Amino acid sequence: MYDTKLWDTLKDWKSPAYEWVDLSQEVSPDTPHLVEFPALSESPVLNYEEHNCIVSLYSLVSQFGTHVDPPVHFIPGGRTLDQITLHEMAYPLCVVDVTDKVAENSDYGLRISDIEEWESRYGKIPAGAFVAMRTGWSKRPPNTYNGMDENGVTHNPGWTDEALKFLIEERGIGAIGHEPTDTDTGESIRARGWATEKYYLGFDKIQIEMLTNLDRLPPAGAIIFCTFPRVKDGMGFTARCFAIFPK
Amino acid sequence: MYDTKLWDTLKDWKSPAYEWVDLSQEVSPDTPHLVEFPALSESPVLNYEEHNCIVSLYSLVSQFGTHVDPPVHFIPGGRTLDQITLHEMAYPLCVVDVTDKVAENSDYGLRISDIEEWESRYGKIPAGAFVAMRTGWSKRPPNTYNGMDENGVTHNPGWTDEALKFLIEERGIGAIGHEPTDTDTGESIRARGWATEKYYLGFDKIQIEMLTNLDRLPPAGAIIFCTFPRVKDGMGFTARCFAIFPK
Repeated sequence: MYDTKLWDTLKDWKSPAYEWVDLSQEVSPDTPHLVEFPALSESPVLNYEEHNCIVSLYSLVSQFGTHVDPPVHFIPGGRTLDQITLHEMAYPLCVVDVTDKVAENSDYGLRISDIEEWESRYGKIPAGAFVAMRTGWSKRPPNTYNGMDENGVTHNPGWTDEALKFLIEERGIGAIGHEPTDTDTGESIRARGWATEKYYLGFDKIQIEMLTNLDRLPPAGAIIFCTFPRVKDGMGFTARCFAIFPK
Repeated sequence: MYDTKLWDTLKDWKSPAYEWVDLSQEVSPDTPHLVEFPALSESPVLNYEEHNCIVSLYSLVSQFGTHVDPPVHFIPGGRTLDQITLHEMAYPLCVVDVTDKVAENSDYGLRISDIEEWESRYGKIPAGAFVAMRTGWSKRPPNTYNGMDENGVTHNPGWTDEALKFLIEERGIGAIGHEPTDTDTGESIRARGWATEKYYLGFDKIQIEMLTNLDRLPPAGAIIFCTFPRVKDGMGFTARCFAIFPK
């Protein structure tokens, strides 16, 4: 007979003792996305009247809504979606909350001190972790993710290079994720292009952008599944991400 | 402190004691799909030279490659992708192998006796299971999934209504999956349209079509994750499915 212990584990996870939280935006023409990109479009291919079923043709950019960025998105020759391993679709999840700092400064960049503060409360970030930056940004109306001010200048929170270097080199994390459309702060985008995003992807890791519902997660103890199609030569795709944790 | 037992579970799963198997077809213009549908198309939106990164626009039908069918695909008013719960993305997995019977008859329909034979070897199919029909069909060249013979008649294996009724009403399964493009056998498609697919989706469950690598799974003991975007009003989408099991 075969070992069915995983069946018991899954049954336990589906019991009321565990919570499952969707971390992906709904996919529709109204999904938040970089304002420069087209929205999702859909056209009917089959219909009930003539074909007994419905099928549509969807068009969407590779970075639409909650999405994965593999290294090749910014790194020529970097890994593409079909080169990302299955193990890179699941991680222990650490949620670092900088919502208060972002409320004071929309261009706030997550710093090493924020990680140290998290670790002083919840313990050392484990090797292979997915570190999610919680900012409250996903509560904004879909077309205001770029944080444009009255002077037409865009603002959004992001990561500092130093914090990313620390997480990767000192903690050996597996991946990062955030609520805004970019890894860089608005300030960094204006001054340095997308230098922080390129710096991060240069470490040969994936990231997830435009996560939502991070406020429904514990800071530590959840696991995250980050899933997406195995697109040949793919430089990104809409991702379905969800977390599971004991209540 | 927070409970981090799931971190230990995941660490265990990523150890050499467990295997992860990809059950989804690669997504590319060459991905197998219903021959009546267009292939994946891709056009560049951003490029390294001008934009420092690459982004593409993808067009694909809702039933492209390995994909999920929610009830609405055949049932007007049935559940759409945004109404499928997170719990419906993970199941205990039972793999029923009818490869030998399909080799003799391309229009073979999985019967109650196949399930009874499976249960006599591996035990009762558990409530909430995902039952995958293994046929070897995914080893065919991409454009031959319809099994067209020399007379232009298509043939493919599928499920019988009786077996589906038994699995749902007597075993309380959660979902099904198979390698071909349809739930119906080729014979059933010719005689009754897609009557079996409509019958199954009428039970308000999802199914996964065009699975691959089922020959790399144990008959019992694995768990399957079936993931896809939360498309508003969605009648299907390319799905990423993978299994985990103890070696």
